[in-house]
Amino acid sequence: MIDIKNDLFLRACRREKTERTPVWVMRQAGRYLPEYRAVRKKYDFLTMCKTPELAAEVTLQPVDLMGVDAAIIFSDILVIPEATGMSLSIEEGRGPVFANPVRSKADFQSLSKPDIWQELKYVLDAVALTKKELAGRVPLIGFSGSPWTLLTYMVEGKGSKNFSEIKKLIYNDPKLAHKILDFLSDICSEYLSAKIEAGADAVQIFDTWGGILAPAEFEEFSLEYIAKTIAGIKRKEQPVIVFAKGVHYKLKKLSDSGADVLGLDWTMNLGKVREQLQSKVALQGNLDPTVLYGNHKLIRKKVIAALKSFGYGEGHIFNLGHGILPDVDPENLKAMINFVKEESPAFHKKPNNEDSEQINV
Amino acid sequence: MIDIKNDLFLRACRREKTERTPVWVMRQAGRYLPEYRAVRKKYDFLTMCKTPELAAEVTLQPVDLMGVDAAIIFSDILVIPEATGMSLSIEEGRGPVFANPVRSKADFQSLSKPDIWQELKYVLDAVALTKKELAGRVPLIGFSGSPWTLLTYMVEGKGSKNFSEIKKLIYNDPKLAHKILDFLSDICSEYLSAKIEAGADAVQIFDTWGGILAPAEFEEFSLEYIAKTIAGIKRKEQPVIVFAKGVHYKLKKLSDSGADVLGLDWTMNLGKVREQLQSKVALQGNLDPTVLYGNHKLIRKKVIAALKSFGYGEGHIFNLGHGILPDVDPENLKAMINFVKEESPAFHKKPNNEDSEQINV
Repeated sequence: MIDIKNDLFLRACRREKTERTPVWVMRQAGRYLPEYRAVRKKYDFLTMCKTPELAAEVTLQPVDLMGVDAAIIFSDILVIPEATGMSLSIEEGRGPVFANPVRSKADFQSLSKPDIWQELKYVLDAVALTKKELAGRVPLIGFSGSPWTLLTYMVEGKGSKNFSEIKKLIYNDPKLAHKILDFLSDICSEYLSAKIEAGADAVQIFDTWGGILAPAEFEEFSLEYIAKTIAGIKRKEQPVIVFAKGVHYKLKKLSDSGADVLGLDWTMNLGKVREQLQSKVALQGNLDPTVLYGNHKLIRKKVIAALKSFGYGEGHIFNLGHGILPDVDPENLKAMINFVKEESPAFHKKPNNEDSEQINV
Repeated sequence: MIDIKNDLFLRACRREKTERTPVWVMRQAGRYLPEYRAVRKKYDFLTMCKTPELAAEVTLQPVDLMGVDAAIIFSDILVIPEATGMSLSIEEGRGPVFANPVRSKADFQSLSKPDIWQELKYVLDAVALTKKELAGRVPLIGFSGSPWTLLTYMVEGKGSKNFSEIKKLIYNDPKLAHKILDFLSDICSEYLSAKIEAGADAVQIFDTWGGILAPAEFEEFSLEYIAKTIAGIKRKEQPVIVFAKGVHYKLKKLSDSGADVLGLDWTMNLGKVREQLQSKVALQGNLDPTVLYGNHKLIRKKVIAALKSFGYGEGHIFNLGHGILPDVDPENLKAMINFVKEESPAFHKKPNNEDSEQINV
């Protein structure tokens, strides 16, 4: 095993002592970087996902260029449905499309459980190669969609405003929905286990569409399968992060799902959530990604506000509340990262009363 | 003044005693109704808004066909920006488009404050005509977008995924944003006052896009101007409803905005919010609109769950958590309305311990 030199991120996931708050951002290997666009110009999105050298190259870009404290493997959550036999095309800007969405029992029966080490070997190779090229500089994060989020894409087939098709399925044929979710949970567990075996130091589960559900349905159709996925992951000390966008209403239950870290979107209050969950999990987030449209003065102000909101002590991983947007100036992300590095040490020193008052002003 | 025969809705808004829970639904005068589509086939959307006879006709349809306890005037929130001089086109399905979005001080300076009784006379005429044709059967609701939601449309110019343009404005030129919001607040107050003068028995402010903001920005750019709008409305006992979709994080402050009723989307828990706000405002909502894709058994179950969640006593107006979707079977809405009428009286009787236990099982 490779020793990790900068393990701030992993320590923060475990709520251990760190000198400062670690920082990375969702979609940090992405279109906002000219270096990414240069690669993307030559290859389409799925080719990049499926070519370990290219995936490793763009995964490393933000580590080299931005100084983030963790790398996240360049990939897409929809490689799982594709590996079950669905025909996927991804056009950046337009989003992913499945030619034949899953709407019936027959549609589901036409899918098959993939052998991860065969059909998704390209992802595992990309993880192993990236791990090698990182040479222990920072930890590497692997990820998966949640079963619910994968099902939503598989049923809708394309971007959706009202999510009518997936809602019709859960309200009219909940049994079939549960059957597919069960099937997907097993795959997600195996997939994340394999990523860890290939070298991932932590894994994140993206529940992008959990927040379209009412609380009771979230528990029944998403939370249960997040917990099942986590329970099935073969891991040692590798932390699991769950990011359930918009799910303000089940944070307590999410914190009992087996997750070590909860990701929060920008509508949540870090400090209040920390208090509510009594520091039983670490928290990741949660700057509004559009803050990076502002100038450096505004960005610093918002970084400080987020650090203050979380408050003193351990268990905060700085991140945006959603993926970085493609039209953000990379210099603004760099500024944000540097502000976190400059401003956060004060929040990891044992406060005496004087300090405490100064910072809480 | 016309006496209102069924004033359940108005009494519930004021948290007064009612025999059962009143019910209406957002977008009840809309495409899901074949009778609406028959009118819409002959006229485009804006012509319908601007022709009092047509607006009145479709406003009355759900009263006659569905048995709702309130009518809401058929109109669109974007008639205000149009009246300031912006060029609006609305295509159902595709959404509204402003040919020249407001992005600069010069853009703003090209707009002018409308004389409501002149430039929006068609809305007031529609209100007066509808009021007359209702003949006191049920109350009539007038509405407006919130200043923030209007600004969002005016700046984005069309549907948006990331709301980049409006976010750029508030983070880079907050002064200009405040100036336009102030301008819009005055117009909204005058507009809602005029609707009341024309015969509206209550008004609702739709803050459709409040929830895209982080808590601090919501307070600064939306809440402040909702409060300002409400303070400026000339009214007697007409209640004000505020529906801020997705704004789970400022309900307490919203309840102090001057609103009599808060509308809740389906991700909120009626009972918990009622407890949090200590019954200081009435609550409206909040079934997931897609529940109406389910069968009658499911719809009844979900109606009962919502009634139970709110619990015993006064101050609940049954509604969906967002507008009814165009592909819903009208029979399912009718079923929902009838279930509310059948199931809700039990929640308005003074419970003795035995009843209370039975219903809480």
